[in-house]
Amino acid sequence: MSKGDETRERIVDRAFRVATRDGLDGLSIGMLADELGMSKSGLFAHFGSKEDLQIEVLRAASRRFEDYVWRPALKAARGEPRLRKLIERWLLWVNEPSMPGGCIFVAAAAELDDKDGRPREFLVGEQKKLCAAVAKAARLAVEEGHFRPDLDCDQLAFEAYALVLGYNFQRRLLRDPKAEARARRAIDRLLASARAPR
Amino acid sequence: MSKGDETRERIVDRAFRVATRDGLDGLSIGMLADELGMSKSGLFAHFGSKEDLQIEVLRAASRRFEDYVWRPALKAARGEPRLRKLIERWLLWVNEPSMPGGCIFVAAAAELDDKDGRPREFLVGEQKKLCAAVAKAARLAVEEGHFRPDLDCDQLAFEAYALVLGYNFQRRLLRDPKAEARARRAIDRLLASARAPR
Repeated sequence: MSKGDETRERIVDRAFRVATRDGLDGLSIGMLADELGMSKSGLFAHFGSKEDLQIEVLRAASRRFEDYVWRPALKAARGEPRLRKLIERWLLWVNEPSMPGGCIFVAAAAELDDKDGRPREFLVGEQKKLCAAVAKAARLAVEEGHFRPDLDCDQLAFEAYALVLGYNFQRRLLRDPKAEARARRAIDRLLASARAPR
Repeated sequence: MSKGDETRERIVDRAFRVATRDGLDGLSIGMLADELGMSKSGLFAHFGSKEDLQIEVLRAASRRFEDYVWRPALKAARGEPRLRKLIERWLLWVNEPSMPGGCIFVAAAAELDDKDGRPREFLVGEQKKLCAAVAKAARLAVEEGHFRPDLDCDQLAFEAYALVLGYNFQRRLLRDPKAEARARRAIDRLLASARAPR
């Protein structure tokens, strides 16, 4: 890794932590430069604009999600076991200590839903890919005979995502100690309703 | 209404609109004073601090939610019809044109989940009341014989809230035209699973 790449990675790492706490809009090139002991112009040499930096933070978040959620899921057997593992890792992701302010995608969604521009486009593209990949995991479970042949896999992906968001809300805002048990029960019900009759 | 009350209401109205777009943290007393043609000290006479103003915005949001969601629900027959009406109005609320930036509670939750203080406490108190009230509406449906006697009403409230959050995400961030149909199908499934066997 070249020195330039290393510096770039250090900047994105720091920006990622700041963004989980203060949001993407809370990223300030001046403040980051201060925290990293760099000059503002030095930082600008790596990222031409705040929007570029926001996109790099979202890209780093997608890579971490890939490692944290997808990689272990892909080790599970194809079909229902893989889908279940995927959802379990996704629930854990929401509380990942490297995101002290909570899931960066949830924070970014609330910030960017009404702000057109490149960061929004990037986030939407990544989230659509995620929904499609969850639906595809469900489709493989249909092919394996674990789930009903007439299952609406996009509907299942919609409901799985809703449960992750509900868990995030009850766990992080309400700090409800029952949130995890409730989320698990709901996921069990969702998967049971998708299962093929014996 | 006294002149002071009127001014106070004008300030909160404007602050409410700003907060749906820029978040509670985006409220600036200086900017609001400019927009309303008031002096900063005049505005400070009504709200001692930014935290006070944030709490008043959340209080106004709760009153609007009450009018928009609960009032029509309470006109429906007690039991499943009332719970269904409540959830339907809640889905509509998320797209209410008076909140150009989307549901203020969703935005506030993402902002405040990791920021201790009075605004967070106020929001958490209101949201716990909401979850308890949804669970109570489900309990009335059990009493009416519409729902199973062994229904876990808090679990139903958890899942209903999750579906509203999922709908909000798919509708507002992904702008998915199928979001509403998906949310309705999920709600139908949730209510069907709660229903008493004939």
